[in-house]
Amino acid sequence: MFLDFNFSSIPHIIFGAGRLGEIYEIIPKFGNNVLYVIGGSSLKKSGKWDEIRYEMQKRAINFSEISVEGEPTPALVDEAVEKFRNKKLDIIVGIGGGSVIDAGKAISAMIPKIDSIKNYLEGVGNKIHDGKKIPYIAVPTTSGTGSEATKNAVITEVGIEGFKKSLRHDNLIPNYAVIDPQLVISCPKSVSAPCGMDAFTQLLEAYVSPKANPITDALAKSGIKQMKDVIVPVCNEKASNITARAAMAYGSLLSGIILANVGLGIVHGFASSIGGLFNIPHGVVCGTLLANSTKMNIKRLEQLGAEGENGLLKYAIVGALITGKESFEDINVPHYCSVLLKTLEDWTKQLNIDRLSKYGITTTDIDDIIEKTSLKNNPIHLKIEDLSEILISRI
Amino acid sequence: MFLDFNFSSIPHIIFGAGRLGEIYEIIPKFGNNVLYVIGGSSLKKSGKWDEIRYEMQKRAINFSEISVEGEPTPALVDEAVEKFRNKKLDIIVGIGGGSVIDAGKAISAMIPKIDSIKNYLEGVGNKIHDGKKIPYIAVPTTSGTGSEATKNAVITEVGIEGFKKSLRHDNLIPNYAVIDPQLVISCPKSVSAPCGMDAFTQLLEAYVSPKANPITDALAKSGIKQMKDVIVPVCNEKASNITARAAMAYGSLLSGIILANVGLGIVHGFASSIGGLFNIPHGVVCGTLLANSTKMNIKRLEQLGAEGENGLLKYAIVGALITGKESFEDINVPHYCSVLLKTLEDWTKQLNIDRLSKYGITTTDIDDIIEKTSLKNNPIHLKIEDLSEILISRI
Repeated sequence: MFLDFNFSSIPHIIFGAGRLGEIYEIIPKFGNNVLYVIGGSSLKKSGKWDEIRYEMQKRAINFSEISVEGEPTPALVDEAVEKFRNKKLDIIVGIGGGSVIDAGKAISAMIPKIDSIKNYLEGVGNKIHDGKKIPYIAVPTTSGTGSEATKNAVITEVGIEGFKKSLRHDNLIPNYAVIDPQLVISCPKSVSAPCGMDAFTQLLEAYVSPKANPITDALAKSGIKQMKDVIVPVCNEKASNITARAAMAYGSLLSGIILANVGLGIVHGFASSIGGLFNIPHGVVCGTLLANSTKMNIKRLEQLGAEGENGLLKYAIVGALITGKESFEDINVPHYCSVLLKTLEDWTKQLNIDRLSKYGITTTDIDDIIEKTSLKNNPIHLKIEDLSEILISRI
Repeated sequence: MFLDFNFSSIPHIIFGAGRLGEIYEIIPKFGNNVLYVIGGSSLKKSGKWDEIRYEMQKRAINFSEISVEGEPTPALVDEAVEKFRNKKLDIIVGIGGGSVIDAGKAISAMIPKIDSIKNYLEGVGNKIHDGKKIPYIAVPTTSGTGSEATKNAVITEVGIEGFKKSLRHDNLIPNYAVIDPQLVISCPKSVSAPCGMDAFTQLLEAYVSPKANPITDALAKSGIKQMKDVIVPVCNEKASNITARAAMAYGSLLSGIILANVGLGIVHGFASSIGGLFNIPHGVVCGTLLANSTKMNIKRLEQLGAEGENGLLKYAIVGALITGKESFEDINVPHYCSVLLKTLEDWTKQLNIDRLSKYGITTTDIDDIIEKTSLKNNPIHLKIEDLSEILISRI
């Protein structure tokens, strides 16, 4: 049946250079007692943290802070919850990259609970979260995960028994997403490059998802159009260009909005399995596997014949969008699929995206990885040999 | 500065033929005591109301009902609130056209208050609503106002001291919008035609709004693409075609989402002033004035020179979209502006949209109307003579 879909709520979005300051107006709407979840040191080094402290003191708002380094673990969330459970927080503000935003999201959701977050993680625990939480404002300082607009927090435990799994509920979508591209300006290439590839992966995988709908399609194309010309320059000569940073922040935000609604494909299947087994940044897994995963999907769709046509058309439309084309009637599908693949390969090279081997992954790990890899909402079924071929190509 | 915008939250959307039944799963999430706000008789005649009653009884959910005929007045809302204030409602469900949805929205917002809604209406009272409300599910049975996705409820008092004003707060966006195109199938042409023109007006006015942003632009174009080929047939040979009805419902939903974010132009300025002075359906005001208001906007933008180019380009893009064109590079702006105007005129004729005189409006009313008309977010300033010319052309 034509037009049948769900679309979750999205945060109230405040987007624009210099608009971080609006959090000082939003916080008092919720109350007088705020917890900031922040990253390691970059916010402090930039002077922004001093500015926030000053504004809080000026307004006589009580505030606490907690620092998150690396991807959030169950232990980190449980400890923070234990510490702040009885502090009667009115609101939590997460300012940082995807890990910090997710940590804040998880803490806001777990404060009303009395047990460990492990019990509520998909595929790990057996409890279902009910969506009750402390209100939450997400302020991203990277343009990558789109976590400021998603309904899940990714929690990681690395090791043989490790996992990278989500706490998920529609109500965990942040109340506000405040996206200030000025906060991303100081982000180094080593972070901006994998983040950009992660965001683009999310736009592409959501666009070709079997669950895609006309709203997510319109937003995916809007995000791709903004990002396509700046994804590489923003890591090089345009690192300080606020217009380019804004375009990346926009693409990342939209990738979060749509992934929350239609899910993702095989690249994020790998990101989950590899991320649970190895200490490797999420964006690197996505960035390094995107080109060859897309190549495999296109190859298998081509072999499907008529059934694969719709999937191929969507890949071709992305290829066409990248070249600046907007009209997709009578589109040359094989040509624009090639354009897409060539572009993804070029970006991977130009952005110096690491290979998996840099993080200790070898061919002997492939079976373990594949065993834990879900195809999620990939547009086509891939066999074990296909997954193996993708991994080998990037070790 | 490039990319600077706000975007309000939207409801959790459930869209698809036959999906009304999902409200029975949603209601218990909020509680056991529900108020249905419904229209005059069509829901009862169709047998749907019996089905709802049956499902409520089967689930032992307490329910009450209130019927709304015509556009909601302050008296209607105040009386309903008085009656249900102490009933400890857990959730309200509004099922009907825009008037019913708005009535339910207003009742849900006023139950926590102790005084009249008049005190909280924009331009009428002097109190600011704080957004506290009973949770609300909106289920449209027409494809027109998009009220299922907006943050305002339009309240009307007709007469010399009359008004058509909004109760507005971000938090009044319904918690859920359940859009089931099957509910629109029985809608007669006399309702579907002005509703369709209202929805198209909202898509067009939001697209050319000075507050438009890339998200609302993407959604406006998506809505226009769905509606353009069915807006007339759905009132004639495709009245029972669920795919066509779904496309209209989709366009209407998106028009609501975007108008909530970027506002509307002169046609809705007139809808507000004329609707307060005369007893005339909202969709008729929009439908009858759309073509000539657009013509005036385009004429004045053309006279602006370079400053008007962006506005004209947007009108031309809509004209191009209507013809099925998707590529807007090197677009012939005057040609596609003409295409748009010709199409709007054709639709007005083919849909038999009434002239204003049918509702007792004469040239002697023009000054009163203009005095109460706001330009809202029109893309260009229009003079009193311009407004007068538009009105005269449709009396």
